[in-house]
Amino acid sequence: MTQVLLGTKNPGKIAEALDILSGLPGIRWRTHPDCPFADVEETGSTFLENALLKATAIGRETGLPVLSEDAGLEVPALGGEPGVRSARYSGEPVDVPRNNALLLERLSGADDRQARFVAVAALWLPDGQAFVCSGVLHGRIAESPRGCGGFGYDPLFVPAGAAKTLAEMTLAEKNAISHRRRAIGRMRAILADLLASGELSGG
Amino acid sequence: MTQVLLGTKNPGKIAEALDILSGLPGIRWRTHPDCPFADVEETGSTFLENALLKATAIGRETGLPVLSEDAGLEVPALGGEPGVRSARYSGEPVDVPRNNALLLERLSGADDRQARFVAVAALWLPDGQAFVCSGVLHGRIAESPRGCGGFGYDPLFVPAGAAKTLAEMTLAEKNAISHRRRAIGRMRAILADLLASGELSGG
Repeated sequence: MTQVLLGTKNPGKIAEALDILSGLPGIRWRTHPDCPFADVEETGSTFLENALLKATAIGRETGLPVLSEDAGLEVPALGGEPGVRSARYSGEPVDVPRNNALLLERLSGADDRQARFVAVAALWLPDGQAFVCSGVLHGRIAESPRGCGGFGYDPLFVPAGAAKTLAEMTLAEKNAISHRRRAIGRMRAILADLLASGELSGG
Repeated sequence: MTQVLLGTKNPGKIAEALDILSGLPGIRWRTHPDCPFADVEETGSTFLENALLKATAIGRETGLPVLSEDAGLEVPALGGEPGVRSARYSGEPVDVPRNNALLLERLSGADDRQARFVAVAALWLPDGQAFVCSGVLHGRIAESPRGCGGFGYDPLFVPAGAAKTLAEMTLAEKNAISHRRRAIGRMRAILADLLASGELSGG
């Protein structure tokens, strides 16, 4: 069994990733806090840079292949904000209800409520190889929060073609369409290829 | 037909990439010089950074999805050199025989002639999504150049388990095992997924 570490401490992200990655034979997924690692400062200016920063730092610390991810919300009417600052949009410490309230305030009266969730997954291997996959979910920002599933901006995000917010969906419903599903689902094909070539276990 | 541009002006790389990508239905590959673009300075410190720099810059210039690639030779006995400086190892302008001569000189008398070719492919989409796939080919540096196929350090590189150098192989033989095959072959699966989701054509 090859071990791969999920490079996140966010229980919501861990649950979603394990659901998306289930059934990939030959990999034993390791997670925080059973397999501990230091926090990594997200100093990048893009989701891609931050996902790679985390996978590389945690991989070098633990010696394991690491799958990390960075994600956020982009609102064209706000010039792409909150973007890489999604988690800390309303300042430190991270406060999700305050972030959601700020987003609604900035969009009050706006005609254009289009938005997209972006996820970037990065895989780092101990031999130095790296892989990056992106995923996007298009939608719009609701007038008020609805639902208590998911996390982050999910209560405000209505996917294109849907009536419910992401937070009103089950984990399975969200994972069928989410940006994270697309990014990590694409990485799944790469993981399967690396398993077959023996590269995931350092072969 | 969705157009995707190969972000390289190197005829050898274009030939190899088109061979690896042939038979992917629904994509019309555009190449230099029919679809012209400006040179991009490779200022990154890693193959990954350079591949992404090129795909992003050429994509923004042309408005097309762009597949770029950066590759090079890493020799542990030389501290990983020539690495990202592979093409310009012996200085400007690029001079392949001089590079090969310098590599042999630096390795003269070395017991450890292990080396690996690394390729990193990057795909950039006009909606801002990016994808990165890596590939590695392990081998060793021969005592003298052999063969006239391929390009770059191919006449000096003997893949693990092979007797011939890469330059003594046919394009098909090289493409069956090469680092570029692995990196671009992995990207092929992502391209197929993006075609299916309509994202490659901006859908």
